[in-house]
Amino acid sequence: MNRRNYIFDTIKKVFQKYGYQQIETPAMENLKTLTGKYGEEGDKLIYKIRSNKNLLERYPELRDCKCLKETYPYDWIPMASDKALRYDLTIPFARYVVMHQNEITFPFKRFQFQPVWRADNPQKGRYREFFQCDADVIGSDSLLNEIDLLLIIDEVFTALNIKVTIKINNRKIISGIAESIGTPERMVEIATAIDKYDKIGEEGIKLELSQKNFSPDQISKIFEIILMEQGKINYLGIAQKQDINLNKLNFLKNGSNVRDSIIIQKGIKETEEILFALTNINNKINFDLKLARGLNYYTGAILEVVANDPKSTFTSSICGGGRYDDLTGVFGLPNVSGVGISFGVDRIYDVLEEIGFPEINNIDSTQVLIYNYFSKDQSVYLDLINKIRAAGINAELYPDPADKGNSNKLQKKQFEYAKSKNIPFTIAIEEINNWKPVVKNVANKTTKILEFESFIEDLKLFMDSNK
Amino acid sequence: MNRRNYIFDTIKKVFQKYGYQQIETPAMENLKTLTGKYGEEGDKLIYKIRSNKNLLERYPELRDCKCLKETYPYDWIPMASDKALRYDLTIPFARYVVMHQNEITFPFKRFQFQPVWRADNPQKGRYREFFQCDADVIGSDSLLNEIDLLLIIDEVFTALNIKVTIKINNRKIISGIAESIGTPERMVEIATAIDKYDKIGEEGIKLELSQKNFSPDQISKIFEIILMEQGKINYLGIAQKQDINLNKLNFLKNGSNVRDSIIIQKGIKETEEILFALTNINNKINFDLKLARGLNYYTGAILEVVANDPKSTFTSSICGGGRYDDLTGVFGLPNVSGVGISFGVDRIYDVLEEIGFPEINNIDSTQVLIYNYFSKDQSVYLDLINKIRAAGINAELYPDPADKGNSNKLQKKQFEYAKSKNIPFTIAIEEINNWKPVVKNVANKTTKILEFESFIEDLKLFMDSNK
Repeated sequence: MNRRNYIFDTIKKVFQKYGYQQIETPAMENLKTLTGKYGEEGDKLIYKIRSNKNLLERYPELRDCKCLKETYPYDWIPMASDKALRYDLTIPFARYVVMHQNEITFPFKRFQFQPVWRADNPQKGRYREFFQCDADVIGSDSLLNEIDLLLIIDEVFTALNIKVTIKINNRKIISGIAESIGTPERMVEIATAIDKYDKIGEEGIKLELSQKNFSPDQISKIFEIILMEQGKINYLGIAQKQDINLNKLNFLKNGSNVRDSIIIQKGIKETEEILFALTNINNKINFDLKLARGLNYYTGAILEVVANDPKSTFTSSICGGGRYDDLTGVFGLPNVSGVGISFGVDRIYDVLEEIGFPEINNIDSTQVLIYNYFSKDQSVYLDLINKIRAAGINAELYPDPADKGNSNKLQKKQFEYAKSKNIPFTIAIEEINNWKPVVKNVANKTTKILEFESFIEDLKLFMDSNK
Repeated sequence: MNRRNYIFDTIKKVFQKYGYQQIETPAMENLKTLTGKYGEEGDKLIYKIRSNKNLLERYPELRDCKCLKETYPYDWIPMASDKALRYDLTIPFARYVVMHQNEITFPFKRFQFQPVWRADNPQKGRYREFFQCDADVIGSDSLLNEIDLLLIIDEVFTALNIKVTIKINNRKIISGIAESIGTPERMVEIATAIDKYDKIGEEGIKLELSQKNFSPDQISKIFEIILMEQGKINYLGIAQKQDINLNKLNFLKNGSNVRDSIIIQKGIKETEEILFALTNINNKINFDLKLARGLNYYTGAILEVVANDPKSTFTSSICGGGRYDDLTGVFGLPNVSGVGISFGVDRIYDVLEEIGFPEINNIDSTQVLIYNYFSKDQSVYLDLINKIRAAGINAELYPDPADKGNSNKLQKKQFEYAKSKNIPFTIAIEEINNWKPVVKNVANKTTKILEFESFIEDLKLFMDSNK
């Protein structure tokens, strides 16, 4: 939990630095709020909650149904369901915004870090319950929001010490290409073709596209984009080596077959403006036409982050998002533009496991354990533990005295307790030290006798010099 | 959410000071883990989750069932259920301990702050989803654990600025009384009688007890306890006025009809030891024989906290707990003694609303808003906002420029945004100030022109002097 909290706290601090407010929504939503929002497969993965309305009460005639009686085990009473568990954070957020539209000040910048549930077969890296971490701004179509979110991404991964590549694309460019070649409805197929080049090569794609009835002229226009995306069109000459993004954008804008499309020009302008504002970030940002996540959903910028740390073998995206124009329309509040990102906390966790978690400075855990050796000394122990805690130091007194049984064994148990809880300092009071408390640094075994009169001062000095 | 977090953070810090570790368990448990643990009424309130196993697939013959076809609306497909939502934190904790018994170091001190769900009709102060906040130590029967938990209670409510009365009782005393008068199985009835005195008076209780077939001798012994509890037996003479707890304990121990019970003497000794260790706490602690919460469940100390702030009208308990001897037995790990408390966070919230929440110092929210007046200045704004955030200050740049439309109206919207988000400082760049940034303290309207060269230093100075 410490490590997950470390990731979340890091992200949270950056969100807050950018003025995002945390909200939480209930785990349960009305079933009808969720159904139909995640596609047919998604609907199957929604956890539905049985209502307490027993169907047998609603339809008493079922009691006499012979087939039911014969097949049903007793506890499989047919029940209705009108509630369900949150499947993601996006739909509950949209529902929340519509419900509170009169109290919310727009643009509304919120982040949310809560578990979601999917009725999937659990397997490595895929759980039935897992955390999502989303940030969205809604009610503003300014590109400054995209810029803010990209700065957040850059700052979060810098703080987590993960080197990443940020990929950015724009739905307008892809749909503009589809439009330019006369098949606006085939945007996803075209995006898929651009993305598949690495896997099936030139011949493979050409074959596939002609099988799908794209004309030779259309195929050649798509291929121009593929060649550009593959870095095979050197439009700006020497500049390409310095700035691949610039080369691509300029070729699309001025050199390509699709340059006359107004919608493409708009997408290019947006991308240029975003990239210009991000010249000084720590991580690499690539304009990448292969990026097509949620193409049907997003309406402007699309972004995705992959780790590019040499120590990480992880190729899946660890963060993604984009601009959408109508999140809340389905709940009756149309035309609210928004842009959002989602951090894949579990995957970030996996990447950090590969490249190494930082030493998490756990000042919240117990710093001092007082050994409980002799029942007769209980009030002395209590007095000392109260003093330590009053000084603001997290501390424990071992609850069971060691003289109630095999005292060697019981003392050892206390020592093991300190070890397993990683408690850095222990205090023992024994005859050998004239019944004075002795503090010990567990790591380096240094000890020091503490005077009762100056107990807290002595202890603090010892702790400070043994950090 | 700020206020709930304030309560939880306060409690959390105290738990950590006493060496408790936070754990979280999944929201979903196996249905069979939960059923039968909360009584018949409780079972009905458990939210059951429909499994994806459709009964129609398991029993295809049901497809031809005429009654089903006629009664079922399409979406009321009969489904099985083998999962359920957490109903409290105790049973999932017990399951967790048994499951991880080989990894856990005992005594295990954990706290948990998570939502639980109850399929109840929601009403004021009673929600379907609400947070519980529990701390337990298990694997140690030392009274030092009870003492620690009571110190935690005292420290939490002191930190929250709520004056409380802590009530403490001991199941051993109540069951010892029942045993002494020859009806060990009637403990709860006796406890109820002691508690009812204030409501129905001497005659009422006498009537009720004789109707329940208690003998006159038994009734007179119960009445001795009631009189003592009512403060009508002055056993220690003058001392009673100083220390009611002492008077009661000494009477029970040496003066009462039930003094020969070994189990009562054990309960008294425990209570004395606890009270002795708590002589210096901030809040009042009352030994209260009327306290009978969970009498069937607890085996030793029982505790409960009520607010006694003059400004609070709240009489329900805001925290409670006790010692139990066999939490994990039902899951196959018997005889593990534990003691725990639970803070009623929602009720504490209600009490704080009555007596007044402290000013929650919200340094996590936005401190500075840069007004976005002119599109042409966007790169200047971006430069400044980056500088402010790099200095670790939470800040926002308003995303939509005011010159894209009715600029008076749009400027006002930005001002309203700062106001509604309680942002204390705003920065504007306008011709009137020679295009230099001017920071304003929204509360007192002080302003200052900032120089670009010393922007951050000037801003910090202004913020510090306008706190």
